[in-house]
Amino acid sequence: MNRLVPVLAALPLAFLSTPAFAQTQALEQAAAAALESDTYAWDFVEGITTEVGPRQAGTEAEARGRAWAVAWLKAKGFANVADEPFMMDTWVPGDIARARVTAPFAQDLTVLPLGNSGATPAGGIEAEVVFFRTVDELRAAPAESLAGKIAYISHQMRPAQDGSHYGFAGPVRWVGPGLAASKGAVGVVIKSVGTDHHRNPHTGGTSFPEGVKPIPAGALSLPDAENLERMFARAKGRPLTLRLEMNPRQLGKTESGNVVGEIVGQNPSLPPVLLACHIDSWWNSPGAFDDGAGCAIVAAAALNAAKAGQPLRTVRVLMAGAEETGLWGSKAYSEAHLDEAIAVGIESDFGADRVWRFDSNFRESNPALHKRIAAAVARFGVSAGSDVATGGADLNIVRDQKGALIDLQQDGMRYFDLHHTPDDTLDKIDPVQLRQNVAVWTMVVGILANEANSILTGGPIPSAPKIMQAP
Amino acid sequence: MNRLVPVLAALPLAFLSTPAFAQTQALEQAAAAALESDTYAWDFVEGITTEVGPRQAGTEAEARGRAWAVAWLKAKGFANVADEPFMMDTWVPGDIARARVTAPFAQDLTVLPLGNSGATPAGGIEAEVVFFRTVDELRAAPAESLAGKIAYISHQMRPAQDGSHYGFAGPVRWVGPGLAASKGAVGVVIKSVGTDHHRNPHTGGTSFPEGVKPIPAGALSLPDAENLERMFARAKGRPLTLRLEMNPRQLGKTESGNVVGEIVGQNPSLPPVLLACHIDSWWNSPGAFDDGAGCAIVAAAALNAAKAGQPLRTVRVLMAGAEETGLWGSKAYSEAHLDEAIAVGIESDFGADRVWRFDSNFRESNPALHKRIAAAVARFGVSAGSDVATGGADLNIVRDQKGALIDLQQDGMRYFDLHHTPDDTLDKIDPVQLRQNVAVWTMVVGILANEANSILTGGPIPSAPKIMQAP
Repeated sequence: MNRLVPVLAALPLAFLSTPAFAQTQALEQAAAAALESDTYAWDFVEGITTEVGPRQAGTEAEARGRAWAVAWLKAKGFANVADEPFMMDTWVPGDIARARVTAPFAQDLTVLPLGNSGATPAGGIEAEVVFFRTVDELRAAPAESLAGKIAYISHQMRPAQDGSHYGFAGPVRWVGPGLAASKGAVGVVIKSVGTDHHRNPHTGGTSFPEGVKPIPAGALSLPDAENLERMFARAKGRPLTLRLEMNPRQLGKTESGNVVGEIVGQNPSLPPVLLACHIDSWWNSPGAFDDGAGCAIVAAAALNAAKAGQPLRTVRVLMAGAEETGLWGSKAYSEAHLDEAIAVGIESDFGADRVWRFDSNFRESNPALHKRIAAAVARFGVSAGSDVATGGADLNIVRDQKGALIDLQQDGMRYFDLHHTPDDTLDKIDPVQLRQNVAVWTMVVGILANEANSILTGGPIPSAPKIMQAP
Repeated sequence: MNRLVPVLAALPLAFLSTPAFAQTQALEQAAAAALESDTYAWDFVEGITTEVGPRQAGTEAEARGRAWAVAWLKAKGFANVADEPFMMDTWVPGDIARARVTAPFAQDLTVLPLGNSGATPAGGIEAEVVFFRTVDELRAAPAESLAGKIAYISHQMRPAQDGSHYGFAGPVRWVGPGLAASKGAVGVVIKSVGTDHHRNPHTGGTSFPEGVKPIPAGALSLPDAENLERMFARAKGRPLTLRLEMNPRQLGKTESGNVVGEIVGQNPSLPPVLLACHIDSWWNSPGAFDDGAGCAIVAAAALNAAKAGQPLRTVRVLMAGAEETGLWGSKAYSEAHLDEAIAVGIESDFGADRVWRFDSNFRESNPALHKRIAAAVARFGVSAGSDVATGGADLNIVRDQKGALIDLQQDGMRYFDLHHTPDDTLDKIDPVQLRQNVAVWTMVVGILANEANSILTGGPIPSAPKIMQAP
């Protein structure tokens, strides 16, 4: 079947011989070609995971990753490629992470520190463990009730196509350690926020409330967390004690950077299309899903869209630094460029599985463009949603500008099997689904980059873009 | 459907009112009940993996495992429960296992030492890596060609229901390190002998030829091994160097033991039925599949078979020590008990997935019994094979006696996803398949334990069993 037929059928006949039609046709060919074979995306994600590996924010490893990305973008023909530096507070995990139940049974547990975790003294701490089934149970514990104790926090995360269960399970990591510390705990271990059953803990950032000293905070792999819970059941009320040793530390201010590159448009004075991802990963994996694939997708889409002819607007790729440890790159980019209007922002940061839904924040203000994009991606199995797009973590600038945003939702059913674990490796990427991402993105980027009007309103582009500060 | 119908239909009518028939009926009920609900097997494997955990041969952890098993067997009513000590050569893995590619790229790789691996000096070794696609390629390398180098050996293992690809891939671990050492290598890393894609290396024993000094020998997880191979491809001929640090050591002689327990038969002077498994595991997992499940299955089968009435013969369970590091328990048991004839031996040591085939070594000498067992297990989805059973690793005594053996083949499609990895945890056991194992074993053990004649020949039992020494 000719994939172009349905789209052609939807076009007014008079349009068929215009230059715009020729460009649409070329764009559709570029997207169809991306679905069949991939020139760029695999090369990017294989390259960065193989030649660089883990890229912990603010470290020399992330710097190597940025340098690698700069070289790759230049080699592929991007213009104005740069690594824009910024300073950040940098935490590193250290090289010791040990947990061992010492009574009433004796067994090692697999643990990794959470970002911003405190350290134990050398030799570790040993304390009784208090079991909380949920963060709410921990919240309900009386003040100081954890003095001298280690808290263990469980939960039951479920896979979801839209990743929505992260909202339920995430607080175990985000606020659980801070809550435990504020009630006097000397340490905390959580059941990894994840959906797999492998001996690979899911790390990720946590934070401690103002005035609360960070305590050692680790994630147990799910098999280990379940084992610990069975130990509680079998202890039959006897105290369960844990020895915990970890040596993460804060380095203070170090440098990170945002890698940018452009496909320059025919009219560079028009606000550009901004495609975002993040270049950093946690230290424990080469970050194939999170977010090597995202950077691969956005870079490939920009290159593919340009194959259909030089776009009207500039397409800018932002590979943000230091996303994982607090959106440092996203904030720095917005601060540095807030007065340069962005036409529209899109981010890829949810793995490499297929896109299944398209949302925008201009469905009501610019229904014609919203519908045109929806029609163009439907052939790739992407349905149009009615949510208001909010953009990815690295699009602070667009939110600060109250600009146009698109979300291309990816299938998240196995995302939290891999998220922030050592298992986030290249072999997890399905090349077929990666190509579907690139094809969808190619269509969307091509349409947006050739849109002459304001994307948010569909009207003429204001001569001096109105930029608003974030509240 | 009544599961008993096909078997009843196969019986001579005159048999229907005999005591033997009543016992058969009781046995079938016990097996059917085991399929529906499990009183013993899960309790055993959950208990030992939770309350003991890893049980490295010859260490205090294995001793705790044996003590746990002794207590469990006694609590369940086994008679003559004992832990029969023997001495063995004990290797322990140490607590440092690090590998890092240092050029032309820089990236840590996940590594674990192989059993009998040598140690590096403190701080590790750093050397160029030579890539061998197979053991045969390594064999073909000239003598001394690896002087000062680290060898990397790859292969491509495939899952197989009968685990048969272990025969192809296993030599990478079994003999690869020894071959590399004999050609002058200062270290060796192998692609894990396994079929999964998680960051959990598969350890396992290796050995070095007489006169060849053991070198540091580690297994890389499959994602890491594949990453290393991509690095070779991207190095484009530049030397690839690896830093390797590991501190395993030989402890010399330490004590291990064989745990035994019996369901005493009506006629204890008849040779017993021997059900074997091993109690030890590698240090890196609680050994749920390998071989907690096996010990759970054999113990549960003995108990279930006894529910059908006291068997004619004694059923003896042997939970052998120190299987993983060289069949020490199996050899010690045979040495200590060689003059006590065994009627028949069966072992469970291939995980917890369903039994799909029954083989014996008396199909020709005792076809009536072979067929009777085949008919009894067919209802559980077990087909009769025509291979000659050779028995499991812990049945040296039966092989040394040239006695009767049965193999109950388990589905091995995912066995080498877990084998010798940290991922061999309780959550991997499917309770439904575990119960199928117990049901099949209950039938087989019950039939054998009530067999009045010699199992190997079908004839009368010799008054003084003819026992032959192993060659």
